[in-house]
Amino acid sequence: MSIKLSFPDGSIREVEQGISVLDVAKSISNSLSKNAVAGKLNGSLVSVNTAIKADAAIEIVVKNSDEGNVIVWNTAAVLLNSAIKTIYPNVHFGTIGDIEHGFYVDTDKNDQQISVDELPAIEDTMKDLVKSKINLKPDQISEKEALEIVDGDPYQAQIIKEHAKDGSVQVYQVNDNVIISDAVVLPNSGDVKALRLLSVAGAYWQGKSSNPMLQRIYGTAFLKQKDLEVELERQKEARERDHRVIGNNLDLFFVDPKVGAGLPYWMPNGATIRRTIERYIVDKEVQNGYSHVYTPVLMNLDAYKTSGHWQHYREDMFPPMDMGDGELLELRPMNCPSHIQVYKHHIRSYRELPIRIAELGMMHRYEKSGALSGLQRVREMTLNDGHTFVTPDQIQDEFKDILRLMVDVYADFDIKDYSFRLSYRDPENTEKYFDDDEIWNHSQSMLKGAMDDLGLDYVEAEGEAAFYGPKLDVQTKTAMGNEETLSTIQLDFMLPKQFDLHYVGADGEEHRPVMIHRGLVSTMERFTAYLTEIYKGAFPTWLAPKQVTIIPVNDELHGEYADQLQKKLAGNNVRVSVDHRNEKMGYKIREAQTQKIPYILVVGDSELESDLVSVRKYGEENSTSVSSDKFIQDIQNEINNYSRKVN
Amino acid sequence: MSIKLSFPDGSIREVEQGISVLDVAKSISNSLSKNAVAGKLNGSLVSVNTAIKADAAIEIVVKNSDEGNVIVWNTAAVLLNSAIKTIYPNVHFGTIGDIEHGFYVDTDKNDQQISVDELPAIEDTMKDLVKSKINLKPDQISEKEALEIVDGDPYQAQIIKEHAKDGSVQVYQVNDNVIISDAVVLPNSGDVKALRLLSVAGAYWQGKSSNPMLQRIYGTAFLKQKDLEVELERQKEARERDHRVIGNNLDLFFVDPKVGAGLPYWMPNGATIRRTIERYIVDKEVQNGYSHVYTPVLMNLDAYKTSGHWQHYREDMFPPMDMGDGELLELRPMNCPSHIQVYKHHIRSYRELPIRIAELGMMHRYEKSGALSGLQRVREMTLNDGHTFVTPDQIQDEFKDILRLMVDVYADFDIKDYSFRLSYRDPENTEKYFDDDEIWNHSQSMLKGAMDDLGLDYVEAEGEAAFYGPKLDVQTKTAMGNEETLSTIQLDFMLPKQFDLHYVGADGEEHRPVMIHRGLVSTMERFTAYLTEIYKGAFPTWLAPKQVTIIPVNDELHGEYADQLQKKLAGNNVRVSVDHRNEKMGYKIREAQTQKIPYILVVGDSELESDLVSVRKYGEENSTSVSSDKFIQDIQNEINNYSRKVN
Repeated sequence: MSIKLSFPDGSIREVEQGISVLDVAKSISNSLSKNAVAGKLNGSLVSVNTAIKADAAIEIVVKNSDEGNVIVWNTAAVLLNSAIKTIYPNVHFGTIGDIEHGFYVDTDKNDQQISVDELPAIEDTMKDLVKSKINLKPDQISEKEALEIVDGDPYQAQIIKEHAKDGSVQVYQVNDNVIISDAVVLPNSGDVKALRLLSVAGAYWQGKSSNPMLQRIYGTAFLKQKDLEVELERQKEARERDHRVIGNNLDLFFVDPKVGAGLPYWMPNGATIRRTIERYIVDKEVQNGYSHVYTPVLMNLDAYKTSGHWQHYREDMFPPMDMGDGELLELRPMNCPSHIQVYKHHIRSYRELPIRIAELGMMHRYEKSGALSGLQRVREMTLNDGHTFVTPDQIQDEFKDILRLMVDVYADFDIKDYSFRLSYRDPENTEKYFDDDEIWNHSQSMLKGAMDDLGLDYVEAEGEAAFYGPKLDVQTKTAMGNEETLSTIQLDFMLPKQFDLHYVGADGEEHRPVMIHRGLVSTMERFTAYLTEIYKGAFPTWLAPKQVTIIPVNDELHGEYADQLQKKLAGNNVRVSVDHRNEKMGYKIREAQTQKIPYILVVGDSELESDLVSVRKYGEENSTSVSSDKFIQDIQNEINNYSRKVN
Repeated sequence: MSIKLSFPDGSIREVEQGISVLDVAKSISNSLSKNAVAGKLNGSLVSVNTAIKADAAIEIVVKNSDEGNVIVWNTAAVLLNSAIKTIYPNVHFGTIGDIEHGFYVDTDKNDQQISVDELPAIEDTMKDLVKSKINLKPDQISEKEALEIVDGDPYQAQIIKEHAKDGSVQVYQVNDNVIISDAVVLPNSGDVKALRLLSVAGAYWQGKSSNPMLQRIYGTAFLKQKDLEVELERQKEARERDHRVIGNNLDLFFVDPKVGAGLPYWMPNGATIRRTIERYIVDKEVQNGYSHVYTPVLMNLDAYKTSGHWQHYREDMFPPMDMGDGELLELRPMNCPSHIQVYKHHIRSYRELPIRIAELGMMHRYEKSGALSGLQRVREMTLNDGHTFVTPDQIQDEFKDILRLMVDVYADFDIKDYSFRLSYRDPENTEKYFDDDEIWNHSQSMLKGAMDDLGLDYVEAEGEAAFYGPKLDVQTKTAMGNEETLSTIQLDFMLPKQFDLHYVGADGEEHRPVMIHRGLVSTMERFTAYLTEIYKGAFPTWLAPKQVTIIPVNDELHGEYADQLQKKLAGNNVRVSVDHRNEKMGYKIREAQTQKIPYILVVGDSELESDLVSVRKYGEENSTSVSSDKFIQDIQNEINNYSRKVN
């Protein structure tokens, strides 16, 4: 009997019922069959050896593709599970599987821990399994049998109950070990030619902080040694820039899921950076005509029903709090309704517009715990937010002003690697958007005209506007290579209508303003993470938590002079300390470099006599001698110029 | 038959059963009976005409006492209720009664409003009731009869149901009107010789924002005209200083119960003041060795169970949020557990102590809606908070450092009217306190010694310490005459134990630190309210939202020069604008004075020619002419000296 297979290119072929995925690949080309690591039937991953029983849409999953890597990593996870089971027969297992860039196995060794020193031995056992070229054929066993096999492992028992279909679960037999796994893997362990175990970390069972903490063992694996080496190099580079690693090394912040997942604590060093950014951006905005306000982080839920956030955005919002007298209070997920309250507090005249309201606005968004990451993805965040209210005629000028301010701010932080993306409504589906052709056409051409007038490069994206208006996004790349929106300018025709906003025009009549949402440097959390990565933790002097460390050659002889110098610098608003510790000078210098302090001043006999200081700048090999006054003048100039190079 | 009455002085007298309170007063002295306005039997207020039926503790409530005033105000409330009923027969009534400094009646006139212009007519009707000398004897009628009388008034019907005892409610007959009231009133309306209706405002039925908004009519009343006049004068004075009134006039902030009771919106002017205070206090603290941090406003509820807040403070806390994965998050009511996390993040050595952690820490406390008031009593607040962790030996030095800093800060704000209060544990009941005699004795003597060393006056209050340690409070008076705690330094022996805090001592062993809670200027909300009142809205130059306004004599001729001047000042960080409006100069000057702007610069022909400015300082009659450079130099000096007088 024959069945029909449809291919991604749209072609359809008749084949014998029961043909394997691999044979389908072979029938197309020899090279495809050599590259095939799995198949996809009607969108679901299957083994290359799967026999196809009915008509289906088919895809061949090949080596080095994203899905191909997932197959390799799941294979490695099964091998790791088996290796641990062989070495530690009484250990319990949580979930296992693939993860970004690799695989993991969760284990519970009772009160004992698997130390990172034990990883090489486990890795060796895995390599033995590779060498043995074990056939990894998926098998089905009954739920009852599976429960007997895991023998009192509470996590595995729960996994079995949750994953059982028609009373049975899928397993792989690896030598004496039966590994329970739904995943699709390579047909033979021998193909996992390159693997590496990387680290051990804590992970809550099922990701819930109320559950026991298991140990998660991470690794990565490839079909070729070369691919493994490339990945290890990428990871090394990423680690060096990873704001979580730097954040820990420089004591910038920490997150403790036990006191609150996604809720960062800014330690004094991180707080200094944040405070410097905050003051900078508030001052910049005030100079540019923004009125800064403080508005509550809580608001009556009704406001978010009016705005539509509750209807469309509820799953990202925190649960409302019932205040017991009929009032439901909501932690705000956005600041726009708050700034609308400020706008509405007075009757506004066209003479006052544009009205620019800005705030360092704290917001709360419910990110899934698995998505949380350092300062980059958090649940409590403070946005450099602003809303300007304009007449339709003012859209272009205001848009230009915001853009100029944005570009100016980027330069102050030495941010260069960004691109503009202008999003319009879909001209084929205008009914999907806020219904006012005139304002759409007018504003889209205003935005485009502004970009052209300012001579800025941009891409245009039709159909990517929000329901409520067109927007400009500024895209940048994180050190990890992920694209991220750093800034945004969004026109909004809807909220002014929802909240019935007006201004009195020159004609004495009421008119509807247009609202522009804009963020220059996103949230303090995300921006600090971003800066940490682009600077690799070597913050420019104006942002550095500690700007200068003074090291006396001999504390008894030069400590007092160092203190005088410290006072003088501190009096000129330089963040400076003296390292009086009873350690060798070389040690102190190395530590200051590890802490990426912009300036090391060494003071000894000759400095004391001449009132000079020996200055060593971070990243430079040599010191220079200047008078303390000259140093103060130079560092103040540098601080006042932000990250722009002083010539 | 005779019964026994016991008096406040402890004496006991036998009297005839059924004797009235007034007759008891008469039996003591004639003057007492003349002064008697009510009685108290076993702690409950009763009318002077109440017949005493059994043994009781008795007190005579006299004229001009706090409780005596309450009797007068409830009498006036009954009269006001009756007067409104006579004038508007179909109006509905909510609650009526006494309130601080007077009385009120809540009314619902359907869709109509009682305007403030109608108050004199209502007042006249009340005065007629006074002249008629109506006998106000409390009467009991059945719940059923009462419901018939209020005839469809839903609020009164609910009040009757809630207040009925044994099926009947208390009423007063005022001419044709039956007024339902539990209150004790004067026996005769004729005694309310002086009364005044003051204002009309909105009040939710039963104080719940989800209920209909009623109109609350406020008044005050006394037995003598003279007392009324004193009260009206006090109210006038209080209004002039009331931060809510000034806050509205100067557009500093607003609260809208519909979007959130007790959640203030800081308008640009108020936000500028707050930002200036925040930067000032953060800089001051950093200069004094504090490490500023940012910590989350949310925390796992478990932390507040460990701290004991959940057990002892729950009714002031917001409801926990169930995050759906077993995590209960709580809006923090205090910052101490957050700062403890920061302390615990590292192993601490005695060499690092004192560790001083500070934050502008946002907190949420559930104040009853009736207690909320402007910026003074709010539900979301940002505390100038700090916690220092010390060894027991460091208590005195650290306490002194905090005190010196505090006194320095007060001087910068020109705060002079304050006093110190040192609170100890009760030596008779030491078992009520944290159990460690040695640390109590040591620390109490350290605190006292520090006050003496610094030569500060203080009162000592035995038995007023917290459970967890002794404290120093700085008491001040609000413009309204209420005592308020501006700053506090509290020792805490308990939390370090609850959270198991350590430092490694010189001996290499773990030791328990002492924690000191300290706030210098309380919350941003309360401090701004306080400053608004002591300055009567005329903020010193460094704090003023707008520091300078420039008024061109003729905008066409002098507007450009004014703009140049504005730029020059703004470039020197002065908050300045030009009043280009097409209004008369006199009008602009008056408005600038109403806005209490510290400096008015008038520029006309002579200023333009000579590059001088004509400077008029707030509160002064005359102008002086100085060069613009001199003016800039002077105002910068003034700003840098905060509120301290520059000589």
